[in-house]
Amino acid sequence: MATDAARTPQHFIRLEDLTREQLDDLLDLAARLKARPTNDALLAKSVGMLFFRGSLRTRVSLEAAMNQLGGRTIELTAASDAWELETREGTVMDGRAPEHVRDAAAVLSTYVDALAVRPAPEGQSWDIDRRDAQISAWAKHARVPVINMDSAQWHPLQALADVMTLRETFKRPAGRKLALVWVHSPRPASVSVAHSLLLAALREGLDVSVAHPAGFDLDEGVLDEARSVANERGTSLEMTGDMESAVRGAHVVYARSWESLADYGNPTLGANRRGRHAEWTVDERRMALGDDARLMHAMPIRRNVEVTDEVLDGPRSLVYEQAANRLHAQKALLSRLLR
Amino acid sequence: MATDAARTPQHFIRLEDLTREQLDDLLDLAARLKARPTNDALLAKSVGMLFFRGSLRTRVSLEAAMNQLGGRTIELTAASDAWELETREGTVMDGRAPEHVRDAAAVLSTYVDALAVRPAPEGQSWDIDRRDAQISAWAKHARVPVINMDSAQWHPLQALADVMTLRETFKRPAGRKLALVWVHSPRPASVSVAHSLLLAALREGLDVSVAHPAGFDLDEGVLDEARSVANERGTSLEMTGDMESAVRGAHVVYARSWESLADYGNPTLGANRRGRHAEWTVDERRMALGDDARLMHAMPIRRNVEVTDEVLDGPRSLVYEQAANRLHAQKALLSRLLR
Amino acid sequence: MATDAARTPQHFIRLEDLTREQLDDLLDLAARLKARPTNDALLAKSVGMLFFRGSLRTRVSLEAAMNQLGGRTIELTAASDAWELETREGTVMDGRAPEHVRDAAAVLSTYVDALAVRPAPEGQSWDIDRRDAQISAWAKHARVPVINMDSAQWHPLQALADVMTLRETFKRPAGRKLALVWVHSPRPASVSVAHSLLLAALREGLDVSVAHPAGFDLDEGVLDEARSVANERGTSLEMTGDMESAVRGAHVVYARSWESLADYGNPTLGANRRGRHAEWTVDERRMALGDDARLMHAMPIRRNVEVTDEVLDGPRSLVYEQAANRLHAQKALLSRLLR
Repeated sequence: MATDAARTPQHFIRLEDLTREQLDDLLDLAARLKARPTNDALLAKSVGMLFFRGSLRTRVSLEAAMNQLGGRTIELTAASDAWELETREGTVMDGRAPEHVRDAAAVLSTYVDALAVRPAPEGQSWDIDRRDAQISAWAKHARVPVINMDSAQWHPLQALADVMTLRETFKRPAGRKLALVWVHSPRPASVSVAHSLLLAALREGLDVSVAHPAGFDLDEGVLDEARSVANERGTSLEMTGDMESAVRGAHVVYARSWESLADYGNPTLGANRRGRHAEWTVDERRMALGDDARLMHAMPIRRNVEVTDEVLDGPRSLVYEQAANRLHAQKALLSRLLR
Repeated sequence: MATDAARTPQHFIRLEDLTREQLDDLLDLAARLKARPTNDALLAKSVGMLFFRGSLRTRVSLEAAMNQLGGRTIELTAASDAWELETREGTVMDGRAPEHVRDAAAVLSTYVDALAVRPAPEGQSWDIDRRDAQISAWAKHARVPVINMDSAQWHPLQALADVMTLRETFKRPAGRKLALVWVHSPRPASVSVAHSLLLAALREGLDVSVAHPAGFDLDEGVLDEARSVANERGTSLEMTGDMESAVRGAHVVYARSWESLADYGNPTLGANRRGRHAEWTVDERRMALGDDARLMHAMPIRRNVEVTDEVLDGPRSLVYEQAANRLHAQKALLSRLLR
Repeated sequence: MATDAARTPQHFIRLEDLTREQLDDLLDLAARLKARPTNDALLAKSVGMLFFRGSLRTRVSLEAAMNQLGGRTIELTAASDAWELETREGTVMDGRAPEHVRDAAAVLSTYVDALAVRPAPEGQSWDIDRRDAQISAWAKHARVPVINMDSAQWHPLQALADVMTLRETFKRPAGRKLALVWVHSPRPASVSVAHSLLLAALREGLDVSVAHPAGFDLDEGVLDEARSVANERGTSLEMTGDMESAVRGAHVVYARSWESLADYGNPTLGANRRGRHAEWTVDERRMALGDDARLMHAMPIRRNVEVTDEVLDGPRSLVYEQAANRLHAQKALLSRLLR
């Protein structure tokens, strides 16, 4: 992962930060690490982890990844209340923030070899949160690679594992059809997984059909970029309000709940809107509309709400493979970013 | 530690999960590790730790154990609020729980090499809590060994260190007398240490006398099993309401506070009952009734309430040795379970 | 680091616990480790960390330090509520404290190779807090080295990095002038950094001028000791109420906010007193009074309140070097204490 300037570290804020060649190389390495899980490539290296929101899969798989390569993670957000950082330049810091992100990032860069950040969007306005200002500030000031552990817009670590899983499952993913289907959940996830998966699948050459009820459109800027990737790659992208039409003929059904950006910052409206679409569940009947379709889901899964037990525990499910690939893909990423 | 089916990992839910041969082998290894504390047997391995209740000794000794063998622990419960797991099968998960234990256990099994669990009993009904349902669910769904870090019924890691300490102290523990004596505490511990110690001591061939005030009987199922072990091993087991009678002639006095199962779920009744037995303290006068008796206690100790300073800081005390053996015995256990 | 008795570990409670020879040896090693950051000198070793107050720089730099030397840190204060320890001898422990510091220290000493402690002063009375009773109790009972991670009186890890930075910056620090200047902050730090720096700078042979507004005198016992060190070393020590007089001719300006010991335990009085001195900021104009003066600060910094952006981001600033040296100096310290 070359960088333009010697001083600028390579960050991993979205999957598209990797060139096609970098992605191929990285997933080849991931496959080799899946076969031979441990080495000492990252001996004595450490990744500082900043969690402004909770995490299970991401945190544990990163900790295990570093450990299996001889390094370790350091949790930076535990046991400190000093995390209300100032981000504005030139301000007189006589308020609550005891430190500027510029100084925190510079100092931490001298202690650890990479910084992994899970920002906490404010949740009031999508126009503001879509800018991913918090992780951008870290990337601007850090002198080591910054890894996005799921921001408002992107979840590139999940997308990396998803692409690895697609490549493992289909010798040639290009030309296959993927249905990205919204599913109901009493507590929906953010749009980040859907955003990253959408761009990644198109870039892999899959035809993508996105199905969701009215009011659950993805970010307009992301859709613009998706259309442009589809054009470039010669794949098709369609949007539909009908899950069954999306699943028909699909080789992969990617189920995901996401919140309504139309209702962003208004939980009551959001809950009302969701409540009208409780029938958006992936079950065997719907899966049967596909072309020997496999199920993907980024977890956690609310069983029998998002996807039925029958599908999850049956032969179509790739969900545990996806989760396992988080570990392998991240080991490859860390090996490249920190070498 | 062979397992019946290739797919079923060997768990460590109670000390009796180990055969006699496995226990002997493991404590031999523990003694060797006490003499030569570090090796790289568990290089790049990790143990995921799930604490649904706080812990000091158990957590630190497990972390140190893994570190001294080249591996590490990963705390799974920190920095996540996603731990209200569903345990019922087939349920429609539209309530609070965001994930099923089946999925959490399956995924974590792909990231770590063992799962150590400290469950949190509900504390309402002993009939329910005695079933240890939480750790059983983890053992059922995990594909790696599950280690019990103190459940409602059992504390096998403590028992393992206790047996190691008995074997170190007495060349042949069999035939010795151990007095397991209830002691007063304003905040009593659970019955788990007493339960595990009782079975372990009988299995080692010691005669056991259990002393406690009325209303502090141990679990009836455990007592049935204890009687059956005593029969099998040809040792004696007696219950008494008189501490001095239990201690008379004993070679080991094991002091432990435990809550009343009769008052389980009713703290006011429990406090009233305890309050009437504040004189149940182990002191020099009582120790002198034994046969050159040694004191054991699983810690933490409320000094001069459970046991007097004089006994604790005198030559009869084995308590620091017991605590130190937690580390050595756990290193042996981890070496065997994770190899 | 020899110890008087074979049984007494060498602690690091204040920088002055090191002899001149030990300090020189340690900083030589720190310089070598800065050039070659990793080795396996502390393979399988661990440092237990007790945080009774939050920490960022200290915690992360210690974790990274251990990792780069093959060992690790173990956080002891997370996930446990059992930290209300009894410190009085001979007491009947029927109150809130579930364990005596004597027992906790003894047991933890068998699990880890050193204990690093950040105590929480009570904050009511300086006469009481100045005694550093909490860390003294740990040092008394631990059987492994105890490292002070910032007590009421001393912050020796910061002073170690500060001396390293002084020696790096000036081939011969002796004979240079250092101005230790109080600066305004809405939430001032404690006096510990100022105390440790004051003694360390004098011991290095620097002339020191301390500037602060009325009511911000440092601890009288520390000042007595400082005068005695100055006499011994033949350096000068002056106190002034005029920042510019202190900075005039200085080669180093060490900026630090600290709370008023006169108002200790009375936040309202403290805030009122501070509020009258908001102009105590280090800016370019004041720096220009020095002799090509360099800026030092222990961080975190409130920009444009304590020090202006212009100074911090300009060529006079040593603050990032100081922060980086925390890591290198601590690696040298740990290498010596734990070997």
